[in-house]
Amino acid sequence: MAVSGCVFCAIVRGQAEASTVHEDDSVVAFMDLRPVTPGHLLVVPKAHAVGLEDLEEALGARLWTVAQRLARALRRSPLRCDGVNLFLADGEAAFQEVFHVHLHVVPRFVGDGFRIDANWQVRERGELDKSAAAVRCGLLALTSRQS
Amino acid sequence: MAVSGCVFCAIVRGQAEASTVHEDDSVVAFMDLRPVTPGHLLVVPKAHAVGLEDLEEALGARLWTVAQRLARALRRSPLRCDGVNLFLADGEAAFQEVFHVHLHVVPRFVGDGFRIDANWQVRERGELDKSAAAVRCGLLALTSRQS
Ligand SMILES: [Zn+2]
Ligand SMILES: [Zn+2]
Repeated sequence: MAVSGCVFCAIVRGQAEASTVHEDDSVVAFMDLRPVTPGHLLVVPKAHAVGLEDLEEALGARLWTVAQRLARALRRSPLRCDGVNLFLADGEAAFQEVFHVHLHVVPRFVGDGFRIDANWQVRERGELDKSAAAVRCGLLALTSRQS
Repeated sequence: MAVSGCVFCAIVRGQAEASTVHEDDSVVAFMDLRPVTPGHLLVVPKAHAVGLEDLEEALGARLWTVAQRLARALRRSPLRCDGVNLFLADGEAAFQEVFHVHLHVVPRFVGDGFRIDANWQVRERGELDKSAAAVRCGLLALTSRQS
């Protein structure tokens, strides 16, 4: 199950150092080494999966539940936390850097230096409907093959 | 259950326009009006919840499962999608703008203009261990009260 050279597999097996806050049968959570803010956590499945393609759905749901609990814990901790971001990067084009799937849980406060930027602009309904049709195409491809 | 003045409750009830791609008993998914990239989706519980504090855990897990499926669908759709981000903003300090909890599913490709920025730097183990202790404090507060 463990992939050699994978730093998160090494943490799961206790062969690499981590500041752990949660561990159960299927999931482990520990501090990000390069935190956006103090308290920035990663929630990771014990079984190696690269991303959303090979992550078992039930395990993904478990990842989420642990992340939600940790978000609520951050708000009750001594750390500064006026809000929380959950963030997952699936694939290099989406800024994934460690190729063992992980869900970021980031405590936030005004002036914490975290920024996101994009070309946000309101799109016309016709354009959105076209996108929706394309997504439904993808859903069809997914369910017709269960690939 | 529906909150008056809440645009996502209005969408759930069919009283506001949306380009919908998925609907089941508990969750609906539709195109973001201001997409980061074409195909940018929001997954929303039908029951109004502001954020991670008042979102039922099982419903949160369902939100996640639908988002994971939509991420896989995007990769199989005609839309440009070399990676996917999942993003949730819980609280104004975390950039939440609509106060009905929603999970973003964003198809990504190199050069799409989406950027994140923060003061990332590697922290020492002692500092990370201190953060971990603080998070465990929060977990204790959460479980001792089930609040
Ligand atoms: Zn691994
Ligand atoms: Zn609502």
